[in-house]
Amino acid sequence: MGFVPSGVITLTTDFGHKGVFAGTMKGQMLKRFPAARIVDITHEIAAHWPDEAGFWLARAFPYFPDGTVHVAVVDPGVGSRRDIIGAAVESQLFLAPDNGLLGMLVEKYPAKFFRLDTGRLADFGIDAPSATFHGRDIFAPLAAELAAGRISPAGLGPQIDDIVRRWHDAPRVDDGAIAGVVLTADTFGNLITNIDGGLVNQIASPVVLAGGQKFRLHRTYSDVQPGEFLALINSFDVIEIAQAERSAAAALGLGRGAPVVVKPAG
Amino acid sequence: MGFVPSGVITLTTDFGHKGVFAGTMKGQMLKRFPAARIVDITHEIAAHWPDEAGFWLARAFPYFPDGTVHVAVVDPGVGSRRDIIGAAVESQLFLAPDNGLLGMLVEKYPAKFFRLDTGRLADFGIDAPSATFHGRDIFAPLAAELAAGRISPAGLGPQIDDIVRRWHDAPRVDDGAIAGVVLTADTFGNLITNIDGGLVNQIASPVVLAGGQKFRLHRTYSDVQPGEFLALINSFDVIEIAQAERSAAAALGLGRGAPVVVKPAG
Amino acid sequence: MGFVPSGVITLTTDFGHKGVFAGTMKGQMLKRFPAARIVDITHEIAAHWPDEAGFWLARAFPYFPDGTVHVAVVDPGVGSRRDIIGAAVESQLFLAPDNGLLGMLVEKYPAKFFRLDTGRLADFGIDAPSATFHGRDIFAPLAAELAAGRISPAGLGPQIDDIVRRWHDAPRVDDGAIAGVVLTADTFGNLITNIDGGLVNQIASPVVLAGGQKFRLHRTYSDVQPGEFLALINSFDVIEIAQAERSAAAALGLGRGAPVVVKPAG
Repeated sequence: MGFVPSGVITLTTDFGHKGVFAGTMKGQMLKRFPAARIVDITHEIAAHWPDEAGFWLARAFPYFPDGTVHVAVVDPGVGSRRDIIGAAVESQLFLAPDNGLLGMLVEKYPAKFFRLDTGRLADFGIDAPSATFHGRDIFAPLAAELAAGRISPAGLGPQIDDIVRRWHDAPRVDDGAIAGVVLTADTFGNLITNIDGGLVNQIASPVVLAGGQKFRLHRTYSDVQPGEFLALINSFDVIEIAQAERSAAAALGLGRGAPVVVKPAG
Repeated sequence: MGFVPSGVITLTTDFGHKGVFAGTMKGQMLKRFPAARIVDITHEIAAHWPDEAGFWLARAFPYFPDGTVHVAVVDPGVGSRRDIIGAAVESQLFLAPDNGLLGMLVEKYPAKFFRLDTGRLADFGIDAPSATFHGRDIFAPLAAELAAGRISPAGLGPQIDDIVRRWHDAPRVDDGAIAGVVLTADTFGNLITNIDGGLVNQIASPVVLAGGQKFRLHRTYSDVQPGEFLALINSFDVIEIAQAERSAAAALGLGRGAPVVVKPAG
Repeated sequence: MGFVPSGVITLTTDFGHKGVFAGTMKGQMLKRFPAARIVDITHEIAAHWPDEAGFWLARAFPYFPDGTVHVAVVDPGVGSRRDIIGAAVESQLFLAPDNGLLGMLVEKYPAKFFRLDTGRLADFGIDAPSATFHGRDIFAPLAAELAAGRISPAGLGPQIDDIVRRWHDAPRVDDGAIAGVVLTADTFGNLITNIDGGLVNQIASPVVLAGGQKFRLHRTYSDVQPGEFLALINSFDVIEIAQAERSAAAALGLGRGAPVVVKPAG
């Protein structure tokens, strides 16, 4: 579980692409660590909703190199007394506000947690951060120092036992049926749920219910004709409801938070 | 026409910027080839429409370094038996599903084609790809190996004579008039057609017709007053219909697929 | 004020993310300078509005390394006789059309100006630029040469005394009240104005007026309850009107150009 930095830093935010928010974070990183290789994971997390960022990070990080520093800033409490945490998971490191963002990650993977000791910021050359943009003023410089190997995860501050998990809405399993929700729709309008493939595989002949309709499980989109609906266990191992070559979100009028049930057919 | 990798990899997809689709492709590339320099060409190709990706790649690649690997994933048939192809064009390499995406490119430039032998994937360390995200599980690792010089284009699989071209809707020339279509509107609302500047230059005094209106050819936007319409041969050498400092797409109500004719004035 | 290139190049444009506009600029840069580290600041400047680009650059550049080359292309006059200028500010360099884009920057910081001598383009290997995409054909190659240290700022052309500033709409101060405008709304719907924090600090007990409503100044978003409105001096040191965890732009129906006044309470 040792973290040996690879020089790769990722960004996951709800900043969108207007303005200079992600750009100035990258500038700050390059100022401190010119060799940083910075990858945008996404800047289109639903505004102020840390859960979606945590969901995607938990599903995406295995595809990144060992030693990656993942910075996640969905931070409605910026400037308040909420903590900033580092979480070491496998050989990678996550930096996020302690607002539930990393809840889904750390329910799936064992982690060590470190709470940023803000008293040390001056030691890292981080002075007078603004009250409204810690992404640029605290997260970016820390990520650069961590990726450059000049701070270790334990150097952030004291190790702690646990982090805030309150926003995590886990699927419920009752009587062999699984009740979950739509987390987000992707660009194609595919509805991505919080229901793990592993749970579904315990059901003999599963069907998926949402928006008053029933969807059969298939392997891939092209197993049905364009325009037909289907469900599948997607490439991030969760249940997804799709309409081949169309938008299921638009056709069904469903989105974030819509209830989804998986149960045995019949 | 030899391909000597430069370490540059580009991405062209219809994934948009929501979710972790492009991000995990980059993670996979950096895992295998830490020195990769990855450039997003665009992730806003119209969903499920390989033609637009092929159009832009055919127009954009000359501006990239020799030895670039271009990865294009607009892939409604992912997980089906459609092939994956490598196309060597001049000193660059294209990796795409064999669904017509590279049709426009290879009508303009001589190419050598290689069909991926999926039986070799395990030799490249590519195991158990998902059925729905070959971008991350096959294209990205292959692009990294090609860009790193550990696989040659011929290493992908057998050389083949031709690829699927069915989706390419070439302009027709009749009686000195050219009939084409709008391929896309850019962010400014400029309507970009599939009509080559070279064809238009054969017409003595050309005018452009679309949406029931007639547009005169100019050299650049500022040759007319803001709000006036114009046509021009744009910087990618195709006919474009624009409204100076406004959106021609919005003003004319035209978009992808709208018929466009170029003919002699009078 | 010496410019010593760091190899970092930034891009600020109104191109959006459709098409291959930013991508081909990066390709051109990597062709000439393979070690370039290219950062997107934003491609979502309001179309044809250089002022917004200049506002953000003036606020963002201090977060970038010394020796950065900032390329800004919001250029409705492309292909006309408008000049291209280089502006050396502190230890960084800006390359932009001379259309007012850099107005806000150079009112805040002393600068040296160089006007591109287009007669030298051929010396730099820049031949036959298109009439409609100088970003790709002139700005990108020049930025690469400057970032690689093969051209100095003075090598662009003659030093000049001043640049076009006409589009800059500075806030007015009358009777202790400050009258400004909304410049843009960010992704969250926060309304970002052109009123400097420094001006506001001269008012004893300031309130902010816009859209017929009055907003009290707070330190950060979470100082009020979700759904409440507030004003604040944001992390780029300008007055911003926000609605905590909601969109002030949507709730108030305000956007670019809306008048904003700051005056003493009472």
